[in-house]
Amino acid sequence: MIFLKSIENVQIKDTFWRSYLETVKKEVIPYQWEALNDRLPNTEPSHAIENFRIAAGEAEGEFFGMVFQDSDVAKWLEAVAYILKDEPNEQLEKTADEVIDLLERAQQEDGYLNTYYTIKEPNNRWTNLTDNHELYCAGHLIEAAVAYYKATNKRKFLDVVCKYADYIDQVFGEEEGKIHGYPGHQEIELALLKLYEVTENERYLHLSHYFIHQRGKQPHYFDEERKRRGQTGPNWYIGGNQYNQSHQPVIEQKQAVGHSVRAVYMYTAMADLAKKTNNESLKIACENLWENVTQKQMYITGGIGSSEHGESFSFDYDLPNDTSYTETCASVGLVFWARNMLGLEKNRKYADVMERALYNGTISGMDLDGKKFFYVNPLEVWPKACNHRFDKRHVKAVRQQWFTCACCPPNLARMIGSIGDFIYSTEDNQLFVHLYIGSESAVSIKNQKVKVIQETNYPWDGDVKLSIEIESATEFTIALRIPGWCKNPVVKVNNQLISVEHLENGYLYINRTWENNDQIELIFPMKPERIWSNPKVRENLGKVAIQRGPILYCLEEVDNGKELPAIQLPRQSILQEVNGTGLFEGMVTIKAEAYRLVENTDDLYVNNALLKTPCIIKAVPYFAWCNRQPGEMLVWINEDRNV
Amino acid sequence: MIFLKSIENVQIKDTFWRSYLETVKKEVIPYQWEALNDRLPNTEPSHAIENFRIAAGEAEGEFFGMVFQDSDVAKWLEAVAYILKDEPNEQLEKTADEVIDLLERAQQEDGYLNTYYTIKEPNNRWTNLTDNHELYCAGHLIEAAVAYYKATNKRKFLDVVCKYADYIDQVFGEEEGKIHGYPGHQEIELALLKLYEVTENERYLHLSHYFIHQRGKQPHYFDEERKRRGQTGPNWYIGGNQYNQSHQPVIEQKQAVGHSVRAVYMYTAMADLAKKTNNESLKIACENLWENVTQKQMYITGGIGSSEHGESFSFDYDLPNDTSYTETCASVGLVFWARNMLGLEKNRKYADVMERALYNGTISGMDLDGKKFFYVNPLEVWPKACNHRFDKRHVKAVRQQWFTCACCPPNLARMIGSIGDFIYSTEDNQLFVHLYIGSESAVSIKNQKVKVIQETNYPWDGDVKLSIEIESATEFTIALRIPGWCKNPVVKVNNQLISVEHLENGYLYINRTWENNDQIELIFPMKPERIWSNPKVRENLGKVAIQRGPILYCLEEVDNGKELPAIQLPRQSILQEVNGTGLFEGMVTIKAEAYRLVENTDDLYVNNALLKTPCIIKAVPYFAWCNRQPGEMLVWINEDRNV
Repeated sequence: MIFLKSIENVQIKDTFWRSYLETVKKEVIPYQWEALNDRLPNTEPSHAIENFRIAAGEAEGEFFGMVFQDSDVAKWLEAVAYILKDEPNEQLEKTADEVIDLLERAQQEDGYLNTYYTIKEPNNRWTNLTDNHELYCAGHLIEAAVAYYKATNKRKFLDVVCKYADYIDQVFGEEEGKIHGYPGHQEIELALLKLYEVTENERYLHLSHYFIHQRGKQPHYFDEERKRRGQTGPNWYIGGNQYNQSHQPVIEQKQAVGHSVRAVYMYTAMADLAKKTNNESLKIACENLWENVTQKQMYITGGIGSSEHGESFSFDYDLPNDTSYTETCASVGLVFWARNMLGLEKNRKYADVMERALYNGTISGMDLDGKKFFYVNPLEVWPKACNHRFDKRHVKAVRQQWFTCACCPPNLARMIGSIGDFIYSTEDNQLFVHLYIGSESAVSIKNQKVKVIQETNYPWDGDVKLSIEIESATEFTIALRIPGWCKNPVVKVNNQLISVEHLENGYLYINRTWENNDQIELIFPMKPERIWSNPKVRENLGKVAIQRGPILYCLEEVDNGKELPAIQLPRQSILQEVNGTGLFEGMVTIKAEAYRLVENTDDLYVNNALLKTPCIIKAVPYFAWCNRQPGEMLVWINEDRNV
Repeated sequence: MIFLKSIENVQIKDTFWRSYLETVKKEVIPYQWEALNDRLPNTEPSHAIENFRIAAGEAEGEFFGMVFQDSDVAKWLEAVAYILKDEPNEQLEKTADEVIDLLERAQQEDGYLNTYYTIKEPNNRWTNLTDNHELYCAGHLIEAAVAYYKATNKRKFLDVVCKYADYIDQVFGEEEGKIHGYPGHQEIELALLKLYEVTENERYLHLSHYFIHQRGKQPHYFDEERKRRGQTGPNWYIGGNQYNQSHQPVIEQKQAVGHSVRAVYMYTAMADLAKKTNNESLKIACENLWENVTQKQMYITGGIGSSEHGESFSFDYDLPNDTSYTETCASVGLVFWARNMLGLEKNRKYADVMERALYNGTISGMDLDGKKFFYVNPLEVWPKACNHRFDKRHVKAVRQQWFTCACCPPNLARMIGSIGDFIYSTEDNQLFVHLYIGSESAVSIKNQKVKVIQETNYPWDGDVKLSIEIESATEFTIALRIPGWCKNPVVKVNNQLISVEHLENGYLYINRTWENNDQIELIFPMKPERIWSNPKVRENLGKVAIQRGPILYCLEEVDNGKELPAIQLPRQSILQEVNGTGLFEGMVTIKAEAYRLVENTDDLYVNNALLKTPCIIKAVPYFAWCNRQPGEMLVWINEDRNV
């Protein structure tokens, strides 16, 4: 499967995503540019661009910042690439070109390109793969270069990273004399596969294959490396080498463990590699890990990684709502992984999760203005606890300015910037429609240029119109994902009902000779409904969540008062749709009759049951929470008791 | 008020507490003696006795152990004192005398007695009051000496600690040239008040008064001390100097904060000092803190200190069940504090909490054999989470051997050993009965020796018979606590019903001329009942606990299977008493019809309500949990939903 290459024209017309794209364009990218250049007032400098100047010999000074500071520049360039593709911008492209020129000048003769080691420890390259993110930064540079090439057709950046990748290929590998290591933070694996896709140079495929399959072999590379650095004593992480998924060969892994972003970046690469090398056992490992993550360790938001310690997965069904880590980047990675799983198999379970993460746990990381960000995306917030409890100090009750949270905003920017890449895929003369996003796209099938126009007010309305423009009538298949949340879908082609009785893994395959101006009409009725957790999720027992279409809802203090857990929603209570106003203009909010337990006692413990009083609750989309007065927030609402 | 001095004869006859006393006598004290002498196999040595030998110049070697290692010896001696009072034991007394001789030889000429500083930093006494527990250890030595004197009438140990206390009094105080500091870990304050009681030397009362009132003054002693030691940077504790309650003068404190054991030891001293000095504002501070702790920060077990970070209080209504710290020592301290609050005011709210802690959250810290101990007493245990979650690593699913948990076992031993001291108090020719514990006690009223014999099968049965033996008929008042949990008490004197209409703060005052062989009969009907939390305790919303008399119940996996939170107890379901068998012989267990949510899906989230299936649940006393196969445990049970 090849997803529609970005170079082909996917124009996002969607109200929902268009707004996010404009926010990225007008707020996130300019703001980050200022940050990278240390021009933000009252903030610690990023120094990221300056590091490259120093490495290029064009400025004096010391390296400053995190050991992975270079990746901030890379992620910015990648997001810029997507934005340039969406809409040309001469000034922005000129700026990006200048940064790329600087990268080229900072590149060492042998191809090496990392400012930390070049400036600070030039003789210690590759001596701390475990912690120091060299290969991670390389991966982000490669991803950015591929995106920039696809957006602009300019080769310079691509040449820079190819030279770097060629050098890395000389340094790492199974062969004698090479380093038998692999990245402490996975990223380069998936990036090399993208580089292979645009260059068709098999060296990159093989290098990615090496990094993936070398991982977890004995003797353990990181253990040995730690010994070489004189580090003794136990691993700081409760799960030891599970932290970076090197505890066993990837092919044997069935349980998602450790740092969740590293994990999903690796799984993303594994799925792509399994596809590209037709590796069945790698595919099975991906499927096992997918089942584990999405059926046992994923929040209803599409958030993953429930533990602050190591920003990591914990174990099956351990999904606390008020201490969840659920890093924005991890959900972004889940979206990438889902796309690659669709490469292995067309099954709506992958697209359903992709959609869940896209509309909930990823974009919740950014406010609607694109100015503040959550690193951690909790499902229950009690601001007092965030301030007073050490074990909840990672949970913020309000989004933070960019600079205190450097990794998630650019990751969101590149996900939103490339949203067009998640909608369709083509394979064997079949066009798959995975997501419903208003857009105009050009796709090649049977050497025909086919234009597909989607019109929809998704996710607020489940009506979708797909129009086909084609030069000459051609027989091929359009496979439409019927969302897992949809109970009674209706599908029409040119106003004729099509049976939805027979779905293949959740997709409706329509094979016919498509003619110009053919129209597919999809009706996915959306109504608010209750969602319950598997009873093994002990945190959610006796609680219910509200969802409408792909959108998850939550209660906020600003609408419902304090002490949100004291609200009890009876099962009979009708969930009514209310058209949003103000901030929620164009969105659907929900109200319902409920009860509130009355605080009619000062006693801590009483032997008579609590009284309750009727109230009306208002639920708003989870992704849009904390865009008004800060306060409590709650996704899983207590159900009414049997009294 | 003077509580019955231990030197007066309170003989515990009670089945319940007799068994604990015997366990302390036969298991805890001999085992700790082996530990103190480094004779336990496969364990890190304690070195506590050896430290004293080295300090006395009788052995070679280095100090080893915690900076507060001396207190282990002191707490052992205190527990031994109570046990000797309960039953003479020549061999044990000889051993204790030899330890006391050793302490005397280790004491420095000026009276100083601390092995850490004497051996390791002889020139640095009192330079790190914040962290290094010198005054804390002194306090435990004083408490032990007072207990030993009261048990044996031997003065040597008392003389040793008086010499030490006299020296401390020369070093600390408001006067110019003295150190203006106070303990980082409170303990000596309450100990000095006990020393004052037996010696009647006002110097000790004043020194305690100084330590209590000096605390929290500006400039802040610990801040200054930290500067002198060159420590900069922020305080490690989230609440800064709240950690050891030095954030403000004690008289101004209204909110319980910081390390919970330090807090309750301080409150215990404050209450006693308020009584002894008739200090109204100190009394009010005690009352405010009591209200805060018991009405906003106390678990239903009598456990306090909900946060692992700093082993501390967190904030009002923040009572998570599965990450609670609730250190055994903190509940023991709560018992001590409650007793001293009863000194300030006869109000059953104090005795009710004392009883709650005594029968639940203190003794839960020890298994029924006295061989294993909990430091942390959670209200909900999921063993897998204890093993895998870093933020629950302090919660153990099984009790630990002594040596991994050195402070709580001896604290339990001294509480159990002195259980007789909590039953009665006398004041103004009134005899107050605070607890119902089978016992024979001698008390002086109007210069008459009165013998009070309690017969009861409490806490399993609420029938209590009090017999009075007196030489000549005397008019005085007996004030009987009517437990807060009791709804329909019946009181008879010599078989005549006495009205319980009018209680004063929960006590029934019976003034009459008591004659020899007068009998009071108390009937406190016990039946299992449901307890709910104040709705502000968000962790317990929709949940119910089971209590019978003073005993709290819980569910264990061994009786009820895994996934205890999936059990739902309908409100109509009758809680049936079942006489315990085996381990629970003599106890009352409870069974009830309930439901269990059925795990009929592999999906993590479903849009149809979960099914349920009937089950019978069995609840056992909380204090006795984890005496069989380890597994899950749950106090707050989900109530059935309205379906």
